[in-house]
Amino acid sequence: MQHDLSTLLVTGFEPFGGDTVNPSELVAAALHGSVVEARGRQARVVAQRLPCAFGDARARLAAAVDEWRPVAVLALGLAAGRAGLTPERVAVNLADARIADNAGGQPADQPVVSQGPAAYFTTLPVKAMVAAMRAAGAPAELSLSAGSFVCNELFYGLMHHLATAGPAACRGGFMHLPLLPAQAAGPAGLRPSVALDLQVAAAAAALQAVLAHEHDIAAAGGSIA
Amino acid sequence: MQHDLSTLLVTGFEPFGGDTVNPSELVAAALHGSVVEARGRQARVVAQRLPCAFGDARARLAAAVDEWRPVAVLALGLAAGRAGLTPERVAVNLADARIADNAGGQPADQPVVSQGPAAYFTTLPVKAMVAAMRAAGAPAELSLSAGSFVCNELFYGLMHHLATAGPAACRGGFMHLPLLPAQAAGPAGLRPSVALDLQVAAAAAALQAVLAHEHDIAAAGGSIA
Amino acid sequence: MQHDLSTLLVTGFEPFGGDTVNPSELVAAALHGSVVEARGRQARVVAQRLPCAFGDARARLAAAVDEWRPVAVLALGLAAGRAGLTPERVAVNLADARIADNAGGQPADQPVVSQGPAAYFTTLPVKAMVAAMRAAGAPAELSLSAGSFVCNELFYGLMHHLATAGPAACRGGFMHLPLLPAQAAGPAGLRPSVALDLQVAAAAAALQAVLAHEHDIAAAGGSIA
Amino acid sequence: MQHDLSTLLVTGFEPFGGDTVNPSELVAAALHGSVVEARGRQARVVAQRLPCAFGDARARLAAAVDEWRPVAVLALGLAAGRAGLTPERVAVNLADARIADNAGGQPADQPVVSQGPAAYFTTLPVKAMVAAMRAAGAPAELSLSAGSFVCNELFYGLMHHLATAGPAACRGGFMHLPLLPAQAAGPAGLRPSVALDLQVAAAAAALQAVLAHEHDIAAAGGSIA
Repeated sequence: MQHDLSTLLVTGFEPFGGDTVNPSELVAAALHGSVVEARGRQARVVAQRLPCAFGDARARLAAAVDEWRPVAVLALGLAAGRAGLTPERVAVNLADARIADNAGGQPADQPVVSQGPAAYFTTLPVKAMVAAMRAAGAPAELSLSAGSFVCNELFYGLMHHLATAGPAACRGGFMHLPLLPAQAAGPAGLRPSVALDLQVAAAAAALQAVLAHEHDIAAAGGSIA
Repeated sequence: MQHDLSTLLVTGFEPFGGDTVNPSELVAAALHGSVVEARGRQARVVAQRLPCAFGDARARLAAAVDEWRPVAVLALGLAAGRAGLTPERVAVNLADARIADNAGGQPADQPVVSQGPAAYFTTLPVKAMVAAMRAAGAPAELSLSAGSFVCNELFYGLMHHLATAGPAACRGGFMHLPLLPAQAAGPAGLRPSVALDLQVAAAAAALQAVLAHEHDIAAAGGSIA
Repeated sequence: MQHDLSTLLVTGFEPFGGDTVNPSELVAAALHGSVVEARGRQARVVAQRLPCAFGDARARLAAAVDEWRPVAVLALGLAAGRAGLTPERVAVNLADARIADNAGGQPADQPVVSQGPAAYFTTLPVKAMVAAMRAAGAPAELSLSAGSFVCNELFYGLMHHLATAGPAACRGGFMHLPLLPAQAAGPAGLRPSVALDLQVAAAAAALQAVLAHEHDIAAAGGSIA
Repeated sequence: MQHDLSTLLVTGFEPFGGDTVNPSELVAAALHGSVVEARGRQARVVAQRLPCAFGDARARLAAAVDEWRPVAVLALGLAAGRAGLTPERVAVNLADARIADNAGGQPADQPVVSQGPAAYFTTLPVKAMVAAMRAAGAPAELSLSAGSFVCNELFYGLMHHLATAGPAACRGGFMHLPLLPAQAAGPAGLRPSVALDLQVAAAAAALQAVLAHEHDIAAAGGSIA
């Protein structure tokens, strides 16, 4: 590992619930060690696998941030049923679990951080990321909710760490990934999916956009509801 | 109008875009003047129709709050495609319009309130509201995003007004309604809908829950993504 | 029971799989004994509950047809996930079960009737039925597939019986119903539903259309795919 | 072109409606000239582009069948909103167009072939095709309805031609394709899509299954509704 390159930290989750695979860890692993270049800047991707467990995941991510001191962090997770890669705009200070996590944890209506702000907006250029992923041939759109399970808790915990204790100028965000084709079959028929190679290419394009854009681009976006 | 009764302020929007009807104003109008009773408390519903326009809608709502000094405010709006009535948990400080509102406004990546907090959580007992609506025979679930259009702006504006300038102890929130059956046909086939009488009965049950529960109930909830 | 009135035979299924209720038997039961009138014609509804089992359901329906000698038969079944009431246009000569029926039967790639025609079209006025249900305030649209499970087998068996052995001039068809609101919650969130009273009113309107229209109306319809 | 190889005829449609591209013609074009091998058999793919017009499309396909005398025909079309590649099981004798085709044709409740049978089942091994496409990493499932627009008319017309006038032993079928990622964005958000390279690989695998299996495999399948 060359220490003259800056670092992009990318995380993925272990499989959750009945699944035997989680695209987020596969995408993160596929990007590990690659060098992202954009506008004369270079950064090397470091991937980290996280447990799907409240508390534990975000503690490990905070430790990794402090260890690697990356220029940016992109945490990945699975959102079954979504039809594309969806960068999240906002993390909310709420942990409310409909089902237990992999360690048995199931918080109900708890804040992620007591006395923390109600929400953090991502500091990644999410509209530029969507544009870059679409240019790479992948379906992508913005999302306004990361849920209230471990994904949102990790995202909120990341942004809180960066805002209060992390390395200066490190930006952070979260992106939900769709199912892989092998996971698409469900009791109500096929659910949307994106092949792993295209997910990896899209995520690489998103990282390029992160490196290229300190501030987000102006673009039509938003959701009516 | 008896002034010895406290007030529940309920708002609905005028039709938006190509629609000729908006269930939110019809539900609000149907509840206007009714008396809600729960646990020995009574309140009369006052309904207000709002324009579907950034800025204008929330200014009118703030004025109505100051005029009526209600015990609680429930703002209603339409979310085409949702399969039930969905109380919103959180309003975000973001106005980002994919299309223009009825007055031609189309903010992009603007805060609702400069220097305002990133988000406000509802102060209505949303889990009790969902339980009450289901007990009334209606499909209902929580929502974690009111979008980034006029609905979210109204919701954020309401919560900001209540937090900074409104009457003490007045609680507030927002609920998205599904399409009416007459609106269900779309280019990709039928979209989910709920009949007007059931929407009205559900909203009435939700208001009862608002009156009955100063604090929300404990219940499984949350969204994985 | 007055024997001077002609009969409309309506069937519903018992609950299937994990469900404790099936809207099709509730709708059929609610209509039992009612008198339908249209264009000077009258008919009394006779409801019959059927087991959710290959072979058994259609044998019982054929017996009921021979006993009651109705002017028309409308068989009802549940299609979880559909957003409205959907009269079926065509029954296919195929039994192919992804899961077992209530009696453990699970035919794979079998014809319903050996040497039977590949399909039967309904002889009910399905476009008039959709128009009547929409006029009654219910979401409704045509469907081109009743699946390959017990519903389609019953539909095919009915049409084959009417074509080959049933009473002359008796018309027949099948309509899928959506979930009830109490069944709407699923692992991926709310599924579409329609309240029981509206399902009953819609089915009554559909029966009126059956009585009023010996031949279907001209109306835009069809599905691109 | 070597004339000692047998032919697999694959067709695709020109773009329809507002679209500027149709994956079916792109997939067919990508396969043109390729040699499919399975179980010691070989065949060369001949691709043909068809207009999206009632009558015209199936006349051209019948002419192509008579010219090429293929061992099998696989017609392709687009089904926006489906989450995978879906071989159709049955073609129905019904043309009922909700909108006009590219030539302005809009039949309503017309048979494709007067006095033709109500339906034809595909003679391709559709379960083997689904298994092969999944093994190739693509989302795929069976479909029981090709609609009542030009796709179904082409499919029915093909099967009728093969049954009544075509070359002996030529098998035929139809497969609907999902949207491409560039087409995925819609007014209600992203619709499911599959990348072109994966669609092409899946279709190639389906053709291999056609060559390998004169009769379909035994496999769980079917649709409840």
